[in-house]
Amino acid sequence: MLSNIRVVLINTFHPGNIGAAARAMKNMGLTNLYLVEPREFPSEEADSRSAGAKDLLENAIVVNTLEEAISDCQLVIGTSARTKRTFDLPLLDARKGAERIVGEAKQGNIALVFGRETMGLHNEELQQCNFHVYIPANPEYPVLNVSQAIQLLCYEVYVASENKTNTEQESEYPRHKEMALFYEHLEKVLRLTNFIIPNHEGKVVDKLRRFFNRSRPERTELNMLRGILKSVEETVEKLEKK
Amino acid sequence: MLSNIRVVLINTFHPGNIGAAARAMKNMGLTNLYLVEPREFPSEEADSRSAGAKDLLENAIVVNTLEEAISDCQLVIGTSARTKRTFDLPLLDARKGAERIVGEAKQGNIALVFGRETMGLHNEELQQCNFHVYIPANPEYPVLNVSQAIQLLCYEVYVASENKTNTEQESEYPRHKEMALFYEHLEKVLRLTNFIIPNHEGKVVDKLRRFFNRSRPERTELNMLRGILKSVEETVEKLEKK
Repeated sequence: MLSNIRVVLINTFHPGNIGAAARAMKNMGLTNLYLVEPREFPSEEADSRSAGAKDLLENAIVVNTLEEAISDCQLVIGTSARTKRTFDLPLLDARKGAERIVGEAKQGNIALVFGRETMGLHNEELQQCNFHVYIPANPEYPVLNVSQAIQLLCYEVYVASENKTNTEQESEYPRHKEMALFYEHLEKVLRLTNFIIPNHEGKVVDKLRRFFNRSRPERTELNMLRGILKSVEETVEKLEKK
Repeated sequence: MLSNIRVVLINTFHPGNIGAAARAMKNMGLTNLYLVEPREFPSEEADSRSAGAKDLLENAIVVNTLEEAISDCQLVIGTSARTKRTFDLPLLDARKGAERIVGEAKQGNIALVFGRETMGLHNEELQQCNFHVYIPANPEYPVLNVSQAIQLLCYEVYVASENKTNTEQESEYPRHKEMALFYEHLEKVLRLTNFIIPNHEGKVVDKLRRFFNRSRPERTELNMLRGILKSVEETVEKLEKK
């Protein structure tokens, strides 16, 4: 079950933090590490700080974009030092978040996404998530070192996986890639229907993305939505041919 | 309440870990750091890793022995990677341990003791504790970096202090120093009564220490025990004078 959960690190600046992250993950039974554009990797400093978890570094997958790291995931969780909701996405504390993660980890891949040392995740990255997780902390000094944040989240995931009380979820969720295709399709159709007008686009797509990420359609529901979009396309095409 | 809780680090080898520990503590609202014979302190590496928690390093108290760091504490908790009881002391996981700590933190000082990077706490250090705490972890690779272990424990303490459900404890416990005086007194009396025989001392004192550390007499109970010891002394003295 833990093998379906990955940690994604974006633009890590200090290679030592990558090593410490690997050790923290292995301590908690996690093995899949994705690195999005790390500043320096592989690195001796990372090897040294990883201690007995060098195997995780050797198997780490380095990619150029967050998209590549999460495209086969059905659940994407962004970590944030903010304790207020942003983008209308649900915000859970680490413990509640871990319970959700473990509850779904049997059904598909799950990504835990961590941002840069200095400024965390950018808005467009946070928007790609299904929900956000924060670590309860001293309000006067709430920003943890990234490897410490990883340690805490992985620990909560490990403890949640040990507690068998997790509610198993029946529904099957689409992968991130399928949701991305849906958003493309949606935008295309909305241009077709002039809901989106060139040069006056506003934040329509962003707002829809937030809504659907938050509401998390199941796969059958998504198929239904895609069917609706297709029906609109076909209707418009038919009319245009007339 | 959190201000009564201190972190004690013994013989830390890497100064970076001291800095990371300070940051981890401050992130979770703890401020009191005691360093028992650190290899290198103060240190630039510690300052750098402490980030916004340099004030904790400046106020850190450096001592030569564990005894000095805990003598005014009523509750001493040792951290251990072992998940089996040792020395007959109670062993709690991090969450349960944190609840105990927070439940008592109003009444007096509490020490959370962390050992060396390579080998944790020595047996004579573990014996000075009232109970041990372990962090649930991957059984195949359970040993965390010390600053990560500190982060997790401090986090659990912070979360427990936020949850107001902690059972407040009524009883007042003696300080470590008072317990130390009691053990001295006990040994003196046991020699007087020939329960302890020179050159055949065995593990008597260790065993008694374990028993009393585990049973945790309240202050009034300890006063009673001291009274009993004194009564034995006086009786023996009286008889010897005859």
